[in-house]
Amino acid sequence: MTHEQKNILSVRDMEREEIDKLLCSAAAFDRGNYTGRELDGKLLAVLFFEPSTRTRMSFSAAMMRLGGKILNLGSVEATSITKGETLSDTIRVISGYCDAIVLRHPKEGAARLASEVASVPVINGGDGAGQHPSQTLLDLFTIRESMRIENIDVGLQGDLRYGRTVHSLAFALAKYNNVRIHTIAPDGLDFPRYIKEDLLDAGIELIGHDNIEEAVSELDVLYVTRLQRERFPDPVAFANYASTYRITPELLELAKPGMIVLHPLPRVDEIDPAVDALPCAKYFEQAHNGVPIRMAMLSEVMN
Amino acid sequence: MTHEQKNILSVRDMEREEIDKLLCSAAAFDRGNYTGRELDGKLLAVLFFEPSTRTRMSFSAAMMRLGGKILNLGSVEATSITKGETLSDTIRVISGYCDAIVLRHPKEGAARLASEVASVPVINGGDGAGQHPSQTLLDLFTIRESMRIENIDVGLQGDLRYGRTVHSLAFALAKYNNVRIHTIAPDGLDFPRYIKEDLLDAGIELIGHDNIEEAVSELDVLYVTRLQRERFPDPVAFANYASTYRITPELLELAKPGMIVLHPLPRVDEIDPAVDALPCAKYFEQAHNGVPIRMAMLSEVMN
Amino acid sequence: MTHEQKNILSVRDMEREEIDKLLCSAAAFDRGNYTGRELDGKLLAVLFFEPSTRTRMSFSAAMMRLGGKILNLGSVEATSITKGETLSDTIRVISGYCDAIVLRHPKEGAARLASEVASVPVINGGDGAGQHPSQTLLDLFTIRESMRIENIDVGLQGDLRYGRTVHSLAFALAKYNNVRIHTIAPDGLDFPRYIKEDLLDAGIELIGHDNIEEAVSELDVLYVTRLQRERFPDPVAFANYASTYRITPELLELAKPGMIVLHPLPRVDEIDPAVDALPCAKYFEQAHNGVPIRMAMLSEVMN
Repeated sequence: MTHEQKNILSVRDMEREEIDKLLCSAAAFDRGNYTGRELDGKLLAVLFFEPSTRTRMSFSAAMMRLGGKILNLGSVEATSITKGETLSDTIRVISGYCDAIVLRHPKEGAARLASEVASVPVINGGDGAGQHPSQTLLDLFTIRESMRIENIDVGLQGDLRYGRTVHSLAFALAKYNNVRIHTIAPDGLDFPRYIKEDLLDAGIELIGHDNIEEAVSELDVLYVTRLQRERFPDPVAFANYASTYRITPELLELAKPGMIVLHPLPRVDEIDPAVDALPCAKYFEQAHNGVPIRMAMLSEVMN
Repeated sequence: MTHEQKNILSVRDMEREEIDKLLCSAAAFDRGNYTGRELDGKLLAVLFFEPSTRTRMSFSAAMMRLGGKILNLGSVEATSITKGETLSDTIRVISGYCDAIVLRHPKEGAARLASEVASVPVINGGDGAGQHPSQTLLDLFTIRESMRIENIDVGLQGDLRYGRTVHSLAFALAKYNNVRIHTIAPDGLDFPRYIKEDLLDAGIELIGHDNIEEAVSELDVLYVTRLQRERFPDPVAFANYASTYRITPELLELAKPGMIVLHPLPRVDEIDPAVDALPCAKYFEQAHNGVPIRMAMLSEVMN
Repeated sequence: MTHEQKNILSVRDMEREEIDKLLCSAAAFDRGNYTGRELDGKLLAVLFFEPSTRTRMSFSAAMMRLGGKILNLGSVEATSITKGETLSDTIRVISGYCDAIVLRHPKEGAARLASEVASVPVINGGDGAGQHPSQTLLDLFTIRESMRIENIDVGLQGDLRYGRTVHSLAFALAKYNNVRIHTIAPDGLDFPRYIKEDLLDAGIELIGHDNIEEAVSELDVLYVTRLQRERFPDPVAFANYASTYRITPELLELAKPGMIVLHPLPRVDEIDPAVDALPCAKYFEQAHNGVPIRMAMLSEVMN
């Protein structure tokens, strides 16, 4: 590890200026401002110790759009891990093959550990209950494409207890001025107390809602997340929630003009497909924004 | 989806002129008439929801021969599909990452559905009992490299009941003048009635044979397919068929000069390996023709 | 197969001059003497019929560093192999898609068979109990980066009975002048008699040791290998060996200055991680040398 090694491990670690720089850079890539040769001759090792199709594919697409090439770990079952090798050793070996590493790993802290032993930059592609900075950055980027991130109301709906995505997004939004967060979560799946406290300490205003109808008219952004059936005490409680909180065109008639609906995808039943055709539906655009954001991240650490 | 989006979903949909254009283009690629830069900077997403090694590898090789790059879905188990995402959502997301999609899917109609939601061209890499246009085109291309596709006798041997490959080839041959199709199939595995009727409607002459010895001397092309043991009522019936219909050098002594033997591969026991050295054995060349044909297809949809 | 087809199947087959040429070429690549365009437009098929992450990744990295592209077989379960296709047929088909093949296969002799049917060069990436030439070459290369391969003492520790890596390395060292091999193996896991006889016939001096403390002070190179628990008669015998033979900083205080420690990796407990920081620890460098060595091999067969 040299002193110049740049890693991207967590949005929480980043200054707002660093975030804004990446968002600006992504916007330029999104407008096609690149030659396709910036990372010519560079190799990105894509180490996914758990599957995540869209994160992997969009990092790969981003790297190739910049002229770089991809070195895939392949499936975990096919690795030396199964021979008892430590993550440190794997990272040390692979960092001799490539110019940067994207690591996805089920264990929290894996990316930081990797960055300490790697001789090349490490980007965290999601580490368990930990951080997933490229997701948070693309969420911010998608909001910023529609409005200034200032003096806005952002609703977070779904599993706010275990949802890493919404925690990271909330902390990132706390770096901006005057963002109010509205929580819309079923019983038992609201933000954990320590998250709430940290968010309040970070100066964010938190507003709880019992139902989505009440909340929707106040929002500039509605961020919906997938609910996992197994998080509910019983199937009836799940079915009850799922029917009450579903996003439909009818519900969205209550929204302010210009409000946008986001979702990290995949969705299951949380959003009626009839919503897809509405101008407020930005979740596919959000997924596509994964490419310019990751171009910005790769460009940042390898240039 | 824009009005200019070009898809290749089925050879049955194509005019003979469109087919001939692709065959001509493939012939030029096969002679090395390309710079390796035609698709420079382009990304092809290769989405195989069921394994098909040679189709996947030859599409990938074709893309890279033209200077393009490959974005792999990876194994299906590793996708969001297992989280309940619909094919439509997957395609919508991935079409934001790439310049074209090759889709292989176990369900008939999947490629057409994908083409309706994708914002980039879709090529059908085989959809269940449906279409597999690149296989049909490479079959036609291989025949055309040896003879004019006109006034010829083509024998189709093996499982003609369930064999998608032979159905598509038969319908494609029906677009050419004066092609006679000879069927050589075990009991119960002949063309289904609706296929026969459609072929007769398309103006093709169908000639049934009880055994391969009788047929072989009349043919310009003998197209052999793999028989699946499980399609036979019992192991004795299978063993009986397998021994009676095997293609051997002795059998081929009955053939006309210039007759060619094709097989979509993999073969198991249908063709004696001693046939491989004979000049009529064109099945490996046929497999290799998968690359120039797929170059032609990729070039067609992305240029 | 043309007369000009160059394969790399086994280091045992190679003349010392051929080996030295590859080592020289690797040294130049390691110093960065390449344009990244030498294999521009070339495709390497990477056919791994058993997993080997670092061999696959370093061949892929080597190919891409030279400007070439990778055509992956993918997982074996996903291939036509499961439909009963022979290796010969698979190789014949795939050699029509690419400019060279790297084959990893569980069966000894697979690479030689492949080279006989392929129409492009074949590199053996390891064939079961057979050969693994790129490993042996990178081992030699790593030694040569620290010292002349002449008049040196090389200790081989671990499973010398089943260990393909140490057999190949010993035979390769026998091509150099005045190399003494010291064996440090637990009971029952020493070199098989036929290997010993062949090595003595090749003119190498063999010195057996009962324990590592006795051997270590005499060595210029200590080559440690992983022990597989299942090779021991019982867990006690394994634990006993593992604790007695572990390489630690204390043990290494007995070593001559300039002595180097190698290991083909992955390691489990054979080497204390505290050794990693010592200047004698060359095993990560050895792993990284896989890239320049494989660049030399690819360049040799494709130019």
